[in-house]
Amino acid sequence: MAGGVRIRAATPGDAPLLHELVTALAVYEREPDAVKASVEDLRASLFGEGATAHALVCEQGGAVVGFAVYFFNYSTWLGRNGLYLEDLFVRPEHRGKGAGLALLRHLARLALDKGCGRFEWSVLDWNQPAIDFYRAAGAQPMDEWTVYRMEGEALRAFAHG
Amino acid sequence: MAGGVRIRAATPGDAPLLHELVTALAVYEREPDAVKASVEDLRASLFGEGATAHALVCEQGGAVVGFAVYFFNYSTWLGRNGLYLEDLFVRPEHRGKGAGLALLRHLARLALDKGCGRFEWSVLDWNQPAIDFYRAAGAQPMDEWTVYRMEGEALRAFAHG
Repeated sequence: MAGGVRIRAATPGDAPLLHELVTALAVYEREPDAVKASVEDLRASLFGEGATAHALVCEQGGAVVGFAVYFFNYSTWLGRNGLYLEDLFVRPEHRGKGAGLALLRHLARLALDKGCGRFEWSVLDWNQPAIDFYRAAGAQPMDEWTVYRMEGEALRAFAHG
Repeated sequence: MAGGVRIRAATPGDAPLLHELVTALAVYEREPDAVKASVEDLRASLFGEGATAHALVCEQGGAVVGFAVYFFNYSTWLGRNGLYLEDLFVRPEHRGKGAGLALLRHLARLALDKGCGRFEWSVLDWNQPAIDFYRAAGAQPMDEWTVYRMEGEALRAFAHG
């Protein structure tokens, strides 16, 4: 891999590290208070019985420089799973040395290995450096679609309405 | 449930029915040629070993009027799964009698039962009746985000580049 990048599956012992990286990503995305998960929440949800999401750790030059979390989504039109990248983050001080590209390529290969028809992720509309990076890699924006979310009290009220 | 609606988990024997409904949804979404999945693809991917997506069938007045397909996504910020609704469809001639609302409410309850922090789905930006329905139900648009997709030759080229 480029620049001595090593990518490995995260283990339960990485939960504190993942929590630190997830928090750093939230700061970058201008939502520093958005991380509600504790270290134990991440450990249980990523490594506990029935876990459906998976984490990768990216090391370069002996240091942990980034991480990714993914799960398998699905397309009825294809009748196949896809690979959905929930988070990809490289610490700002370690950018520009191939770690992000190596993570994205690792995931693209994993998608093909798993027989997935698509590899997808979401990008904040103001994050032009990321958009340029992803478009250059061959990804297309799904411009016609908007995700709707129900959560918290609205979800409870609707469910029991 | 409203109007005698019955919602049940789909079984492998429903694969031909699901294929017919998936095709009807594609026609409605103005993409009649988008369904690449065969009946067997749907059967294997929804009911085979390791399947991660799940289907519901909705019956009303003795007829199958619609279906839904969902899977569990994930939020690192919450450290919890979410429930993602991939497809929800009610045959046009059976709309307006509560089947769509019953399916959506069934899924919202399932999300809470499974400990999910969010219930999400994607909506085509031109589908104003759906947008009005979902907003009235308490869902919020994730306006700041766009999904990027890599597939087919672009995915293979990037993975092996």
